[in-house]
Amino acid sequence: MLDCTYRVEIPHRPGQLARVVTAIAQGEGLIGDLVTVSLGRETAVREITVEIRDGDQAARIAQLIEALDGVRVLWHQDRALIRHEGGKLEIGAVRPVRTVQEMRDVYTPGVARVCAAIAGEPSLATRYTMISRSVAICTNGTRVLGLGNIGPTAAMPVMEGKAVFYRQFAGLSAMPILVDATDVDTFVETVVRIAPTFGGIHLEDISTPECFEIERQLIERLDQPVMHDDVHGTAVVTLAAAIVACRRAGVELRSATVGQLGLGAAGFGIAALMVDGGARRVIAFDPLAASHARAAARGIELGTMEDVLRESDVVVATTGRAGLIEPAMVRPGQVILALTNPHPEIEPEDTERAGAAFAADGRSVNNVLGYPGIFRGALMAAASAITLEMKLAAAEALADLARGDEIVPDALDQGVHDAVAQAVARAAERGGATDPSTG
Amino acid sequence: MLDCTYRVEIPHRPGQLARVVTAIAQGEGLIGDLVTVSLGRETAVREITVEIRDGDQAARIAQLIEALDGVRVLWHQDRALIRHEGGKLEIGAVRPVRTVQEMRDVYTPGVARVCAAIAGEPSLATRYTMISRSVAICTNGTRVLGLGNIGPTAAMPVMEGKAVFYRQFAGLSAMPILVDATDVDTFVETVVRIAPTFGGIHLEDISTPECFEIERQLIERLDQPVMHDDVHGTAVVTLAAAIVACRRAGVELRSATVGQLGLGAAGFGIAALMVDGGARRVIAFDPLAASHARAAARGIELGTMEDVLRESDVVVATTGRAGLIEPAMVRPGQVILALTNPHPEIEPEDTERAGAAFAADGRSVNNVLGYPGIFRGALMAAASAITLEMKLAAAEALADLARGDEIVPDALDQGVHDAVAQAVARAAERGGATDPSTG
Repeated sequence: MLDCTYRVEIPHRPGQLARVVTAIAQGEGLIGDLVTVSLGRETAVREITVEIRDGDQAARIAQLIEALDGVRVLWHQDRALIRHEGGKLEIGAVRPVRTVQEMRDVYTPGVARVCAAIAGEPSLATRYTMISRSVAICTNGTRVLGLGNIGPTAAMPVMEGKAVFYRQFAGLSAMPILVDATDVDTFVETVVRIAPTFGGIHLEDISTPECFEIERQLIERLDQPVMHDDVHGTAVVTLAAAIVACRRAGVELRSATVGQLGLGAAGFGIAALMVDGGARRVIAFDPLAASHARAAARGIELGTMEDVLRESDVVVATTGRAGLIEPAMVRPGQVILALTNPHPEIEPEDTERAGAAFAADGRSVNNVLGYPGIFRGALMAAASAITLEMKLAAAEALADLARGDEIVPDALDQGVHDAVAQAVARAAERGGATDPSTG
Repeated sequence: MLDCTYRVEIPHRPGQLARVVTAIAQGEGLIGDLVTVSLGRETAVREITVEIRDGDQAARIAQLIEALDGVRVLWHQDRALIRHEGGKLEIGAVRPVRTVQEMRDVYTPGVARVCAAIAGEPSLATRYTMISRSVAICTNGTRVLGLGNIGPTAAMPVMEGKAVFYRQFAGLSAMPILVDATDVDTFVETVVRIAPTFGGIHLEDISTPECFEIERQLIERLDQPVMHDDVHGTAVVTLAAAIVACRRAGVELRSATVGQLGLGAAGFGIAALMVDGGARRVIAFDPLAASHARAAARGIELGTMEDVLRESDVVVATTGRAGLIEPAMVRPGQVILALTNPHPEIEPEDTERAGAAFAADGRSVNNVLGYPGIFRGALMAAASAITLEMKLAAAEALADLARGDEIVPDALDQGVHDAVAQAVARAAERGGATDPSTG
């Protein structure tokens, strides 16, 4: 699935655009945004974005449009690539420097007095530098989306995207840090050495099992909040979705058995947070035996896939395997969140047809809802760690903000991120903030 | 010397502001900016910035103002501290994300296609990420301005200031990286590990002799431009100033003996660039014997301070010792650049009174003129190193742009930075760009 933008020159007369739109429909493209780039006397240039399956379909739709009399396709391109030209992130001044006086303030000689003040009283760095408003997004690119180990440089677009949302939703400066190290010790040592630059450390897209040990060591060695987003951020949003789903289905999470399919970074994080969040029982399945000891140590029972589906009131699947769950396996009254993207373990319609009380897929559980507010709350409270209480507070806040038939709130709603930050900060201030989560 | 801002409530009638200004003059304050904050029916609130010597004088001036009938000092504070509240730098989106379609472009699912494209063809990272427009400003804070070893965190305001100018004058994203390591190996290893994130590596405020070895190893190990600004950036601007000074004094730099007082990071960089830049002979003095072998290896002769002053046509001093040069030591017709801030080795007026042909101090040789254009030029040309040819091109460009009685051009003039970048990029493209400078 991709979004392709066609730049098309079309005669500027009634009915002409309709022919183009019809041609796209014939090519089985789903039309998204339509923007007018320029209007001439005879023709208009439009950019039409179309959701398609692959490059072949993109080319076929271009041919269908080109075949129309008087219509020309100037170019067509993957819309995501267009939007990435030049990168997505930039670093700049909070206030520009326009005068000699301003240069004297922000640079020599003025800056020396600020440095001297911080040297005398280190806590002033919070006030006079960007540090306490900054997060490092650290990755080695060993497990990026569904792409696997593509290395740090190819992972950069994901990190820039995460940073864009930190600014927009949390007012924080987030800097991607690409770490050229796949082993735990080198990764940890590198991040520890540059940690003074940042108020928080966000770990991203690091393969299991290294990610668990990297996070554990960094939490132990650093004074600021450290969180592997794939483990904890995703777990917070998923717990919120599960709380909402249970409310809709009339299931009580505290008295429910939660089943987790898949114990990768996200699956382990979800199962562990379900245990901590008070589910009566958590049972999980993963074919990879290496994941079992870690799960057992966190109070997660292990079973077969059949066990999990038979015994659970709420099932969460993060297996990466489309269509894994047969409709016949679904138990009436169950809540099933099949989160693998872009194709879930079972389609929500099939799940509900099989008698489930509530079903959702990964499109509705957007990870962007978690980390910006979590880190903003932690930094607002000057917390030294992201504790369990802070994660649970974030999940509760998200669950309480879901409206109508949403399973989680709208990620583009600024108020949601503000509420998460406030809830996390309050939880930190209530006391757990200096007690590092053992995640 | 510091700039103090007084927020003062003054009766809004003719002659009242004059009383305040007179009081400040009585306190020997030199008035800078005067800004009206609010105008009431009876009173006006103004912020008056005053250049003063120290906190005692600041307090005395506040008393003198307070003593005026009907005038109140609401507060007074170091202006640089005010301007540093919240930090000076921020990281944000090139374009904000407003719609679901835009979120799909910059984050999942769109971002996965960009990652996959880069994984397939790594050079696309230049096009689709911020990397090739980014510089890391790396420091361990072991030698910050005149403050010495204050550590990385207290050095942050300097790094943020440098980064502000990277954005403003070169359109580059520069990120401070505070490295918690004073030894060469750990520092180098840390920077190498995070280097994939950045198009260029700017080293800053690292003590000698470690800085030389750190730069040498990083140049050797990394594919992107690496430059210690205190050594090379300062040298470029100083060479430009020397070229202009020689033109004014009718001295030919190529046939001149250049004397360097002080062989710290800046002094060594200046002397080495004078050798490379074609001065007939370069002779230097530094009481620290450890600096001598490094200088000799770069073709710099060594002598006493008296030797240097007696034999040189052009003298550059970067000793950190105010008043070091006696007027009696100055040779008629000499060019003397006494660059120690805030108080030079000899005041320009004293130098010229002693018969020098041309004199300047450090206020006129602003390091901000160098590094933004140098790195922008290097990144524009996709250079793998900052070569001698690129540094000389930058110095020539600066020298050619000095107007009237300027010894270097105005650092706030955007055209100057553009010209430096163009000159550096052309020099890189002419060929030397893959031949790392040996500093």
